[in-house]
Amino acid sequence: MTRPKKPLRSTMASSTATTITVQGMDLMQDIMGRLNLGDYAFLEIQRRLPTPGESVVFNAMLATLVEHGMTPMAIATRLTYLGAPESLQGAVASGLLGMGTTFAGTAEGSARLLQEALAGDAANTPDEQLPMLATSIVERLRATRTPIPGIGHNLHKPVDPRAPRLFELAAEHGLSGRYVKLMQHIATAAEQALNKPGQLPVNATGALGALCSEMQIPWKLCRGLAVIGRAVGLVGHIAEELHHPIAREIWERTEEECATPTNH
Amino acid sequence: MTRPKKPLRSTMASSTATTITVQGMDLMQDIMGRLNLGDYAFLEIQRRLPTPGESVVFNAMLATLVEHGMTPMAIATRLTYLGAPESLQGAVASGLLGMGTTFAGTAEGSARLLQEALAGDAANTPDEQLPMLATSIVERLRATRTPIPGIGHNLHKPVDPRAPRLFELAAEHGLSGRYVKLMQHIATAAEQALNKPGQLPVNATGALGALCSEMQIPWKLCRGLAVIGRAVGLVGHIAEELHHPIAREIWERTEEECATPTNH
Amino acid sequence: MTRPKKPLRSTMASSTATTITVQGMDLMQDIMGRLNLGDYAFLEIQRRLPTPGESVVFNAMLATLVEHGMTPMAIATRLTYLGAPESLQGAVASGLLGMGTTFAGTAEGSARLLQEALAGDAANTPDEQLPMLATSIVERLRATRTPIPGIGHNLHKPVDPRAPRLFELAAEHGLSGRYVKLMQHIATAAEQALNKPGQLPVNATGALGALCSEMQIPWKLCRGLAVIGRAVGLVGHIAEELHHPIAREIWERTEEECATPTNH
Amino acid sequence: MTRPKKPLRSTMASSTATTITVQGMDLMQDIMGRLNLGDYAFLEIQRRLPTPGESVVFNAMLATLVEHGMTPMAIATRLTYLGAPESLQGAVASGLLGMGTTFAGTAEGSARLLQEALAGDAANTPDEQLPMLATSIVERLRATRTPIPGIGHNLHKPVDPRAPRLFELAAEHGLSGRYVKLMQHIATAAEQALNKPGQLPVNATGALGALCSEMQIPWKLCRGLAVIGRAVGLVGHIAEELHHPIAREIWERTEEECATPTNH
Repeated sequence: MTRPKKPLRSTMASSTATTITVQGMDLMQDIMGRLNLGDYAFLEIQRRLPTPGESVVFNAMLATLVEHGMTPMAIATRLTYLGAPESLQGAVASGLLGMGTTFAGTAEGSARLLQEALAGDAANTPDEQLPMLATSIVERLRATRTPIPGIGHNLHKPVDPRAPRLFELAAEHGLSGRYVKLMQHIATAAEQALNKPGQLPVNATGALGALCSEMQIPWKLCRGLAVIGRAVGLVGHIAEELHHPIAREIWERTEEECATPTNH
Repeated sequence: MTRPKKPLRSTMASSTATTITVQGMDLMQDIMGRLNLGDYAFLEIQRRLPTPGESVVFNAMLATLVEHGMTPMAIATRLTYLGAPESLQGAVASGLLGMGTTFAGTAEGSARLLQEALAGDAANTPDEQLPMLATSIVERLRATRTPIPGIGHNLHKPVDPRAPRLFELAAEHGLSGRYVKLMQHIATAAEQALNKPGQLPVNATGALGALCSEMQIPWKLCRGLAVIGRAVGLVGHIAEELHHPIAREIWERTEEECATPTNH
Repeated sequence: MTRPKKPLRSTMASSTATTITVQGMDLMQDIMGRLNLGDYAFLEIQRRLPTPGESVVFNAMLATLVEHGMTPMAIATRLTYLGAPESLQGAVASGLLGMGTTFAGTAEGSARLLQEALAGDAANTPDEQLPMLATSIVERLRATRTPIPGIGHNLHKPVDPRAPRLFELAAEHGLSGRYVKLMQHIATAAEQALNKPGQLPVNATGALGALCSEMQIPWKLCRGLAVIGRAVGLVGHIAEELHHPIAREIWERTEEECATPTNH
Repeated sequence: MTRPKKPLRSTMASSTATTITVQGMDLMQDIMGRLNLGDYAFLEIQRRLPTPGESVVFNAMLATLVEHGMTPMAIATRLTYLGAPESLQGAVASGLLGMGTTFAGTAEGSARLLQEALAGDAANTPDEQLPMLATSIVERLRATRTPIPGIGHNLHKPVDPRAPRLFELAAEHGLSGRYVKLMQHIATAAEQALNKPGQLPVNATGALGALCSEMQIPWKLCRGLAVIGRAVGLVGHIAEELHHPIAREIWERTEEECATPTNH
């Protein structure tokens, strides 16, 4: 085989008999007792420590993703735990697998839109041209009948309360920049184009996409934040299931009703 | 169908058009900007906020579980991401599924041992009887050739440096109680029984099991902490894979070598 | 690094520009159009073709594992498909993860019992000593309060109709040997020991364990048959979900009921 | 809650104490001993039995999907089995999750193309207009820089040998109709448009997409065939891993090389 081997390299972690180094830091002295789990997630994804402001905002971003109540994912985790309680990891994995495109549960779409809009030469777009950029984005999406990511919400009307809270925290900590502005201009442009004034504000997903972009997290990793947050939440659902199980009842009701003969 | 229906109940979260409540708390005011991700995990699992000390120690416990370098789990996640980059959740799930019994990667075993040893009437075992209890536990495990969980380490010799750091933080924050004592007595009893003085100290897994028990986290949920921590780490591996991919090289080398004819 | 490398070898498959070889056979000429999927599964697991009798019986064994109606696994697959329809593989994986210890859904337990009982010197146990062997097995299990695998059924009473059908096919095709006999003696011994005459016949799981053993399939792979069969069934559930969806209704009912305030 | 409940219905299976009915058939009499696993998969997906010709061709289609050697999926399954051998279902699930868009491992793309091209009024396109239809499809895809699914292969050159074998079997059994013709015209049109005569014949994926369409299997279920086939193959890889393990060596080599310091 003449294919030249490429070296395998990683800077994630290394160990000796007496040391453990993660991302170039001493696990025991620099991480344990110093970093909270959100900071550690930031370190893993961005390969640097968050600033104090990034720490607050990043933890708040993850906080919006942990717990959404009795979602299809939570139910799947509980049903899988019923069948294989000895493999808790499988129950969490089962639920995570439902984090797909249906519930738009990630900031991926809006982060991609924003990052591509301000990439390359466009990175220098002056602030006063952002409304025009937003209008052209909305027009382009509408022309191809593509949904506009990050605006409106089917339950939280008119405003998804997580979005203003995220923007407030970002502003407090100096993380509200051009991506946030562009996202808000997109919402305004969409409301105008669709003639729905005040009805399509930026939602949590749009705010997350904008703030990931402010922190230079690539859009391809935004779903990773959702996966991290939801892994926490799904373990929480297993904890409740241990104390107050409902999976068997959901299963039995479903099985019984499906087995009931009907006239049609 | 005459089976009486049991009601489905959950107190995880609820929403209205303008509010989101999680574990009885207002998501925007009480959680976002206030709780870090480790605290939120504690809230989800224990249905109450951690004390300041619990916050430090619980985040440190999670920190020991995030990143173990290029484990089989990390490689599986990277290979899966190579095949299905559009489904990041599947890549993380794929890696999580390797968190089973081989690598003793969870505190489940030691937590169960400790919680069962101090359950019921034994909960009142006086401190001075803990060494005797430890000796009888070690004898019982050895009689059934059951491995003693939570002691020794194949790489970190003689001491897994995470364990003393966890115990140090627990002591600083008033979380070092009878479970920690019993775990340490078990290590000592095992060293005596196996005639390996100073060679089988409590390892990270044993320390985690003891501290979960101090915090009254049921042993059945201890693997959940490992799943949460590792979900963070596996997203980190995907982040590195995006910047510096190695999965294709691992695959191609393996495929080529497996395809090479041999004489035997 | 001085650790000597072990060579990586596999005889699963190899390809050139014009050929594809699987298990030493030409895929196009020897497999496609000749082997059905059950035969191919046998070839993959046992690394040889099944005999005509093994083909019939092995396909019948798999057939008992495909479709069990609206199980927790099927519901989990449907809920996951609702969230991520673009990743059908994730929906099937989600359901497979529920194949654990709760529903005793595999022949693993009975196969292990039988294979360990007739291993080594015991392999030559004369037929007339099998009843005595069965009695001692049942006594040993009862002494340690271990459930006796492969007998009785909570719905199919007194007889799980799949078991006699499997045994009938095995007898027709010369695959009913000492493992089948031992399994049946175990059922009889259990009925005597528990004073439940005629109430604990061999069930489908016990029959599968016995027939896997007759075919020299190691007990560690028995769950693999269940996974293969159930993967087929879960794709079937997705097919029905496409035509007649129920996942959203299951989710919405559950979410609504869990959100309803109660007085207690 | 005033939302009207929709009834939950399923016709997959039903059971009583003495009967098991699947897809309206008696499991013991109509399926076990009569249907092979491929036929049963057809029954589950299409809710009717295959004709004898469909049985041969459908099993051959599945046979192309079972075993592709040491793929990233197979390696992931082996690594996961190393970590959690007690949860074989998790190891198979882990590998299945890599069946995404990278390896174009499913017939989904070509099936969708063909089914949408011959949907509605176009269903009556006369045979002599199929070449023109193919040309317009290729032009449309090229105009949007969309890859043409189902043609060419990076290893099997010039011809993927599975495709002619699938088409041969389909022709023998009366299953070679307009979808097969259109797929072949698309390959020809692509070769002309890209000026690569004879270099972009229909590959296995294209043949599978065409034959799924001939059997009226919706394109959304085509990936299901790949999942079924690959589940069989991944259990085969676990069987080989049991006899001749390689996962630990792959892991250790990777970990060691990644840990080696470099000068850059």
